[in-house]
Amino acid sequence: MSWKLGIDDLDALAIGAAILGTGGGGDPYIGRIMAEAAMAQRGPLTVYTVDELPDNQWVIPIAGMGAPTVLFEKPPRGTEPMEAFLRLAEHIGVPDAWPCPIEAGGINSMVPLQVAAQLGRPVVDADGMGRAFPELYMQTYHIFGISGSPACMVSEFGDAVILDRIHDNHQLEWLARGLTIRLGGHSFLAQFPMQGRDVKRAAVRGTLSLGLRIGRAVIEAQKQHIDPLSALCEAANYAGYGPAFIAFRGKITEVRRRTEAGFAKGQVTIEGLDGDRGSTLGIEFQNENLVVRRGEQSIAMVPDLVTVLDAQTGLAITTERLRYGQRVAVVVIPAPPIMKSPEALEVWGPRGFGYPFDYVEPALRVAAEKGE
Amino acid sequence: MSWKLGIDDLDALAIGAAILGTGGGGDPYIGRIMAEAAMAQRGPLTVYTVDELPDNQWVIPIAGMGAPTVLFEKPPRGTEPMEAFLRLAEHIGVPDAWPCPIEAGGINSMVPLQVAAQLGRPVVDADGMGRAFPELYMQTYHIFGISGSPACMVSEFGDAVILDRIHDNHQLEWLARGLTIRLGGHSFLAQFPMQGRDVKRAAVRGTLSLGLRIGRAVIEAQKQHIDPLSALCEAANYAGYGPAFIAFRGKITEVRRRTEAGFAKGQVTIEGLDGDRGSTLGIEFQNENLVVRRGEQSIAMVPDLVTVLDAQTGLAITTERLRYGQRVAVVVIPAPPIMKSPEALEVWGPRGFGYPFDYVEPALRVAAEKGE
Repeated sequence: MSWKLGIDDLDALAIGAAILGTGGGGDPYIGRIMAEAAMAQRGPLTVYTVDELPDNQWVIPIAGMGAPTVLFEKPPRGTEPMEAFLRLAEHIGVPDAWPCPIEAGGINSMVPLQVAAQLGRPVVDADGMGRAFPELYMQTYHIFGISGSPACMVSEFGDAVILDRIHDNHQLEWLARGLTIRLGGHSFLAQFPMQGRDVKRAAVRGTLSLGLRIGRAVIEAQKQHIDPLSALCEAANYAGYGPAFIAFRGKITEVRRRTEAGFAKGQVTIEGLDGDRGSTLGIEFQNENLVVRRGEQSIAMVPDLVTVLDAQTGLAITTERLRYGQRVAVVVIPAPPIMKSPEALEVWGPRGFGYPFDYVEPALRVAAEKGE
Repeated sequence: MSWKLGIDDLDALAIGAAILGTGGGGDPYIGRIMAEAAMAQRGPLTVYTVDELPDNQWVIPIAGMGAPTVLFEKPPRGTEPMEAFLRLAEHIGVPDAWPCPIEAGGINSMVPLQVAAQLGRPVVDADGMGRAFPELYMQTYHIFGISGSPACMVSEFGDAVILDRIHDNHQLEWLARGLTIRLGGHSFLAQFPMQGRDVKRAAVRGTLSLGLRIGRAVIEAQKQHIDPLSALCEAANYAGYGPAFIAFRGKITEVRRRTEAGFAKGQVTIEGLDGDRGSTLGIEFQNENLVVRRGEQSIAMVPDLVTVLDAQTGLAITTERLRYGQRVAVVVIPAPPIMKSPEALEVWGPRGFGYPFDYVEPALRVAAEKGE
């Protein structure tokens, strides 16, 4: 059933979306301000589940592209996502399209809410990544053969570019990335226009709800002074995700970073505390956390969701905010089956990020469950 | 009056357009093949002078963008310019627009002819550069305040991008250049859509005729075994251009080149022969020939047209084909007044290319005329 999402829900969604961001996707803060301003004017949103979406209802996914940090240096005017959405809708002749998320993790969780509020339209409870990923074609919409173009990009200068017919979704990423860089490092992009029947076969379902559930669980645990980590793991067992578990608790002892081809790459080393005392965990990241290693063994990896959290508060720590000495917990939320088909793993399994090995289910689950 | 341009005219136009290319603009060869193939199917073209263009007739300038040399490595499919033209015409709702040149010099002289032939539409005897220039905003259309966007770019893969609303023409150059690089170094671009009344105030007139006149003069002189250089100078005194003159005759003794920010920059040194024996000329180029120096004195400069020609045949030598030992003549064709307004000189006078001095009229004219 469709449900209402109000301003009061944005706190929880920001917390949950940051956790689904798996270290990347950007701090939801600026997106949240934008969504909040629009909802303050227009009231709560109607959220449609994928099931109840009419087959012939046009849907246009919308998100920011580029470095979210740029938004702090030059905040958006606030109309860019709506403009990208409307211009694309007009270009393809579907004036009554509904906005839909591209990326449930990070700042992009908020962008479609802002557009829905500004236009007084429903938003769809689904996305194309089921988390955060760095590149445009890393979407179930792509994996299910839907064309990313026509797409429309809008910059904070009001520049609008329609990527009208692009021969494949990798080329779309390549051209849109180039434009985004020349537009100063960030833009807003409406893409993968499709009908309800395509959303039904190609979207990761319930991810807006999932973000809310996780965020609410953390807030509730904080209020009740119980462990937010266990609460969020329980909440994350939803919509095909999970079973989630706490893979490690410890203290950050080293962070290595490098910038390579526009991505923030690096590795964080965590020395165990409590039950994990005496052992060491390493996480390799490229914007998002990719692979978790204990010694030589890779114990969790993309596309499963690996998030580093503040051990006390249960709040996510993005990869750019990892620091020596932080007390953290590493939570693994196994991704749902739609994200683990052979076609999906080719795009965003370990090999999709250049690792020379295949995806395996998280190996620590049993150990972690045993330890609790 | 409107006139006809047939396949038999393409030889002369290729020669004339190469001379108007002032060392850049690309060898017209591939463009000529494309135009010829289209005209073989559809017959001769109707060329409209600017005067007789209806005020409300929509016109869309069309050209290639990027490195013309790339076209030799990966020749176009042949439909790219037409697709860019038609897609932009459809996007802005002017289905009966006519093609018009952007750049009279080099390969881009041919591109609008091909489109006109393919579509069976007239072409306009005018352009926006009056020669060849390296950047998109170096057009009288820009100088007269016409927006370059909406524009449409098409690649040889069939990718089509609409630069729908770009906040100024420098930004259009910046974004279109970035796309062109990511498309492999060359693309075709329809831009500056405008009505006849705008062409009348903003175009450099008669430049298609000018190219033809110059080319015909060279061919005729070759047949009659008279000096093609004098013949082309006489023919170039047309449509506000001129008086053209032979600035120097000599032998190339040094060519220095470097690639900087995607441009072929460099300098050629020519030692005088015949009446110029004992003196030395230097020409600095950035794709096109920019400034001619004799000792410390700059004797000719942009936007006047400086072309290095084979001293015997009168055929232009592009900057990338300059070689030690070539016997050459340097011809200067003063640009027409519309290209020398204060606003125009700001864009493409010496300061527009980073030189620390203002434009001055060519100083050698008197000396050259005296020497003949």
